[in-house]
This record gives sequence, C-alpha cells and structure tokens, in this order.
Amino acid sequence: MKAIETVFDGSMDEAEAAIRAALGEQGFGVLTEINVSANLKAALDVDRPPLKILGACNPGFAHRALQLDPAVSLLIPCNVVLEPAAGGTRVAVIDPRELMNDPSFADLANEAAAQLSAAIDGLRRHQTSAP
Amino acid sequence: MKAIETVFDGSMDEAEAAIRAALGEQGFGVLTEINVSANLKAALDVDRPPLKILGACNPGFAHRALQLDPAVSLLIPCNVVLEPAAGGTRVAVIDPRELMNDPSFADLANEAAAQLSAAIDGLRRHQTSAP
Repeated sequence: MKAIETVFDGSMDEAEAAIRAALGEQGFGVLTEINVSANLKAALDVDRPPLKILGACNPGFAHRALQLDPAVSLLIPCNVVLEPAAGGTRVAVIDPRELMNDPSFADLANEAAAQLSAAIDGLRRHQTSAP
Repeated sequence: MKAIETVFDGSMDEAEAAIRAALGEQGFGVLTEINVSANLKAALDVDRPPLKILGACNPGFAHRALQLDPAVSLLIPCNVVLEPAAGGTRVAVIDPRELMNDPSFADLANEAAAQLSAAIDGLRRHQTSAP
C-alpha cells in the first residue's frame, strides 16, 4: 500500500501538531484519532512502538467522491500514520490514488494526492522545536 | 469496493446500537465515529441523506496484521457504514479481503471477514424495537 510520507525532525507530539496544521492549510480536518499502541497495550498487554492514526478528511473532496460513488464511504477518512523513525517521526498519509483506483476517480484522486503531498511537504514550516 | 452488508429493520440509531453490540460479540470495538452528513452540512452547507461511519477494530487481528506488515496502519480500522435504505438502515462493513489482498494476509483476512460476517448476521438478535 503506497503512502505519501516523510520523516519529521521532531517528536511524535511535535509531528502531530505540525501535520494537523499542514493538513488544515490544505483544507483537511482531522476527524478521528486512534492511539494504536495504547489500545493494544490495554486490550492485549502487548508492548509495541508508539503508533497513532489520524483520520483526515477534506469535506469538498469527500462530497465529490460520495457523489461519484457512495461506496467511497467504506474508504474515508484518509489515514495519517505517526510513528517513531530514525531521525524523528515518520508521517505517512495513504495515497488516495491507491484507495480510489477506478478511472472515474482519477481526477479527484490526483487532486487529493496533490494536496496531501503539499501537506507533507509543508510539514517543516510547522516545526515548533529547533531542528 | 466490496462490502459485507445487510439491511437492518430499524432506525439509524437502532442499527448503530445493534451493530455495536454484534461487533462486540466478535471482539471488535468501535474506536472512531464520523457523522459524515453533519460534517458536510457544517463545512459546505450541503444537505445529503444521513451517513455515519464507525471505525471498528479487533485488537487481536490488528496486532497480527501489524506484525505481518506495518503498512497495515494505513488501512485500519475497518469502516462500518450506516445509512437509510428501503426497509430500514443499511449496515455495511468493508470486506477486509479487499483491503488486504496480499497473499500473506489471506488467512488473517479470511478470519476477520468471517467474524465481521458473523456480526452482520447477528444484527437481528440485537434488534431493540418490534420489527
């Protein structure tokens, strides 16, 4: 599964604040949040590296996608994954072109991918700590 | 995108209560909840039929899937869609075999699909209103 991703030079919390700001600039709100590692610890008592999943949604894209095909509701929002990586925090967004690979979605998926790429590219500008 | 689905003879709220109970019996918790129609109304002032998306996760399956391939974090939780339909409320769960179509996931995806099918099949037992 292909992602649009980067490594952010900062902690998980700093990366989360930065990607929320960068997504907001591209019209994406964060609608859901799952602390996967905390959930697995609570449910199964397993220890694993931190892992957080944010659910990002751009209302304009979501509306257009649902009008094209109501089955899109099975695939939204877009997952944004945060996890520790060498050099900081990996921030990865699922590539909407992978999720919506039907030709009728091509234009919309390309536009959404461009804006998510812009959010990932814009992360550094939202760095709050000294690098 | 293939779904495992049924039409529940009841309102959206009744269907949500029933699917939460039925998922719980199969070890799936509901971690996220998006009222899509309310979000689109607030963001774009568009009126569309009610649409709610629950994010369901079975910690055991999630843990095994992440161990097989950490990229699964781009795809969890499983979306459960609730929307009005002729005869009541359509309840549709994304088929995990569609999301995880790599052969290495076959066993896990089949097991998860079987339990989600059991949840959908078990909906009727959680009907709180007279049919």
